[in-house]
Parts: sequence; C-alpha cells; structure tokens
Amino acid sequence: MSAKEPQIGDAMRQAFKKQGFMQTLGAELTALGPGTCEIQVPFGPGLTQQHGFFHGGVIATLADNAAAGAAFTLFEDGRQPLTIEFKISFLAPAAGERLIARAEALAPGRSVSHTRSDIFVAAEGKERLVATALATIKATKAVTEL
Amino acid sequence: MSAKEPQIGDAMRQAFKKQGFMQTLGAELTALGPGTCEIQVPFGPGLTQQHGFFHGGVIATLADNAAAGAAFTLFEDGRQPLTIEFKISFLAPAAGERLIARAEALAPGRSVSHTRSDIFVAAEGKERLVATALATIKATKAVTEL
Amino acid sequence: MSAKEPQIGDAMRQAFKKQGFMQTLGAELTALGPGTCEIQVPFGPGLTQQHGFFHGGVIATLADNAAAGAAFTLFEDGRQPLTIEFKISFLAPAAGERLIARAEALAPGRSVSHTRSDIFVAAEGKERLVATALATIKATKAVTEL
Amino acid sequence: MSAKEPQIGDAMRQAFKKQGFMQTLGAELTALGPGTCEIQVPFGPGLTQQHGFFHGGVIATLADNAAAGAAFTLFEDGRQPLTIEFKISFLAPAAGERLIARAEALAPGRSVSHTRSDIFVAAEGKERLVATALATIKATKAVTEL
Repeated sequence: MSAKEPQIGDAMRQAFKKQGFMQTLGAELTALGPGTCEIQVPFGPGLTQQHGFFHGGVIATLADNAAAGAAFTLFEDGRQPLTIEFKISFLAPAAGERLIARAEALAPGRSVSHTRSDIFVAAEGKERLVATALATIKATKAVTEL
Repeated sequence: MSAKEPQIGDAMRQAFKKQGFMQTLGAELTALGPGTCEIQVPFGPGLTQQHGFFHGGVIATLADNAAAGAAFTLFEDGRQPLTIEFKISFLAPAAGERLIARAEALAPGRSVSHTRSDIFVAAEGKERLVATALATIKATKAVTEL
Repeated sequence: MSAKEPQIGDAMRQAFKKQGFMQTLGAELTALGPGTCEIQVPFGPGLTQQHGFFHGGVIATLADNAAAGAAFTLFEDGRQPLTIEFKISFLAPAAGERLIARAEALAPGRSVSHTRSDIFVAAEGKERLVATALATIKATKAVTEL
Repeated sequence: MSAKEPQIGDAMRQAFKKQGFMQTLGAELTALGPGTCEIQVPFGPGLTQQHGFFHGGVIATLADNAAAGAAFTLFEDGRQPLTIEFKISFLAPAAGERLIARAEALAPGRSVSHTRSDIFVAAEGKERLVATALATIKATKAVTEL
C-alpha cells in the first residue's frame, strides 16, 4: 500500500469493503497514490469466459474500480466517485494467474475527472497488457445527485 | 426462450454454461432471436457497489454478453463471438430486483459486428433504463485468432 | 425549425454561427426540440475520405454537435454545453448527398447529460443509418470551468 | 518524415492527398514509423468552436486519421485501413497555434488493430495534452468489404 494520504486510503478501503461485488471477485486494493490506483484479482474458475480466460466483464470491472479510485484520491473532502461512463478495448486474451488494473487520473477536475486504466495479466512471472480503458468519473456530494 | 433458430440457441446456452463468470453472477439467457439477445440477473448482495445498487461491472458484463449473443445469432457456421471493445454510459442508479440486458445487432458483418445494448432494472413491476452500450464483436474462427 | 422554445433556438443558432468549423463544413441546424437536435451537411468534395465518401471526422463532428445541442435544450438558464467525451461506431460507408445527425438526450442531468446520436446519409430519396454515437455533455457556467 | 518504410510512407501520403477533408483542414502528415503516425494541423478561424478554440470535431478527426495511419504501417501488403469505431475523451480546452495527433498501434492484428491517439496543442513553444482516444482499425482488402 503506497498511499501518500492515509485518510484517502482508509476511505477507499472502506468503500471497497462495502462493495459486495469486490468480495465476489476476490479483488484487492493493492496500491494507491495521488491520482493513481491499483487493483488485483487472482484467477479463479468463477471468473472465466468460455475458453477459461478471465471474462471481459471482470476486466472491465477492475478497470472501472481502479479508475474511480484514482480519481477519488484527488477529490475535495466529502466527494465520492461515480463512474458515469467508460470505454474499453480488449487487446489480447487474458490467460494468467492474476489480473492487475492500474489507473491514473489524466485530467482531474472539480466535478468530473478523466482517467486511463491499463489492465495486465500476470503469468509465469511476466505481465502482459490485455486491455486499456478510458473512464469519466464524477465527484458527487451524494449518490442521489446522479 | 424465443429463439427462432434452435441450433444457435443450443450453442449459446452451451457457451453460456462454460462461462464460469455467468454462473457466479447467476445470469440467465432469457431470449434469443435473429440479431437479438436478452440476459437477466436477479439482485443479490454479492453484486453490489457501495450503496447497495447493482455494481457497474455487473451491468457492463451483461451488456457485453448480450451484445456477443446478439451478434452470434447472425454469424456464419462455426464462427464464435469475441468482444473486441465496448463503451457504456451509466444513465441512472441501478436499484432494483433484476437487471435485464437487451442487445441488438446494428450492423452485422462477416468479420465484425456492431451492437447496441440497453440495460434495464426491474423494480416493483416497472422497468427503467439504467445504461446503454455500444460494442464491437468479432467473428472468430478460433480464439487464438485474436 | 421545430424548436418549441424560441429562446433556446436563438441561443443555439448564435452558438452555431460562432463555430467557424460549422461554417467550414456547411452545416445547418435543421431541427431543435426539448432534448432533441438535428444537424445536416450537404456533400462536398472537401468533406471526403480517400474513397469519396463523407469522412469519418465529418460524421463524428456532426454527432458531437447534435449531441451538445440536444443536451443544451434542457439546460438551466445560462449553462453552456461542453462535450467531455464521445464514442462513435461506424456502421456503413457514408456515400450520399447529405449527412443528417439526429441526437436525443437520454439522461439529462443538472451538471452532466448523456446523449445518443444517430447519423444517416440521404441518397436518392432514402436515408440509411451510417453511424451511432454516445456522448457525455457537461453543463458549464463558463468555458474556463472545464 | 521519419518513416522507416518508404513504400508505406508513399502509400500514406497518397491516401492523405485523396482525402478532401484533410485538405480542408490543412492537415499535414508529419511523421510515420512502424506502428506510429503523427498528423498536425495549424490553427485557423475555420477550425473553431464557439470560444475560438480548436473544435472537438477537428481533434477527433486528427485522432482518427493518425490511428488509421499507425495501424496501416503494420498491415500486410494491399490492405487498407478502415476505422470501425473510436472513443475520445476531451481533457482540456484546445487553445493554441497547432494541433498534433500522435498515434500508436497497441495491438496490431491481421484483421483488426487497436490504437491509442494522444492529441496535443502547441502554444508558445509548449505542448499540452488536450485529448486521448482509442480506435479500432480494420484491415480491409477493399472498401466494399465493410
């Protein structure tokens, strides 16, 4: 955990734990810095598409959550992240032991932030880029603001 | 199941069962026609974001799978669907009892098909549009062709 | 011109005239309603890609401007539209006499609106869908707010 | 012009000249390498949105063309690039003297390539990132193959 700002790290970890879907995936928040976030998920048979690779939906979920985390680290106090859209390109089959999403805030804004997420698969000690995504994250005062 | 072409329906159901992630989500293939596909998932605490709504990753996964299914119904024999990219816009919080993704092939092609997926949430007998997606689906001869 | 709200129509036409690029394209604001906008551009040799069809950039520009217009019609007073992102899928070659973009606001919001644009080509009295786009439009108080 | 492969450079320049829209924009093919392409356009009043900045449509057009060029450099002989979709996020207002799109092929494929384009504005001797895009480029044998 490389978070420079412990408070944000705490808030992120709490939000992470409240997401039932993150528990379902077995996802772990593995790094957090100013404008960056990394999330990982180990391979499991419950995460696959029909050829036994990581499902695109798992990849997209990690891309989305890492993006929200990266944007969140730069928000004003009390704001929460809400993904309003994302777009993802799948570059290669995601066959491996572990999926790693690394996101960075490209253009942090007071109300809307643009982010990029690169998603890697780790296999036999090597990482390979399998997808890349661009997301738009809104800084909400409350979820009902959507 | 409204599939007009039983063979495709069978192939789709088989592919569906091979996807561990579809089992994890509890997703059901509920309708299939020429160029259309519907997938549903009932609500569960393991599918949520931090406010208890369906997680964006679940919504995106359904949008993706329905898109692949819709394109698949129009493929030449032996071709299999591979999502090469998608974009999803989140329109409203997905609070409800059931998530329903309905996809249609907008421009079926021999090698690449464009699709649209609309995702609804059902609550108290009503459906509400919560997200919309555009996906590009490739018709592969084999998965290694990617 | 079918604008129900003349003030918005006037503001849109003024904004349209200020856009040098709309003049360069020869684009015309042809319809405007609550949450909808239509823009057209007649074919010309200065708008082509290498095969003599409308260039994808012209199609994307129309999709973008129509989206901003559709969102703008539902904004609070004094807000101006800013496209923060879009995605476009090209469905068919755009060979024809006229390009027509029709946009609608899918989820109008106080600060951010989601829109869909369908782009048609008109040839020999018929219209054909050649592209579809999803855009996110921000309601800005001033351009420097970006 | 840094093209390592003069034949591709020639083919690209020819395709570029055939695009009436590139002439309209005043766009210049400024660099070409294996899997990379750079296109620039100088500022002009005919390229603006309502605040006098480069129009988003100009930015998107450059992103698209640079992406197609980058993919094209890695194609098999005789294949031509066709953009089947792209997605673009606008990060900052594009106020400046010159717009520069730099694209790279992220995942070159026999039939479909994924690309990333970063678009910069140059002003007072400095470059600033104003947009980023992901595009999917098809390698067509002929345009009618779409």
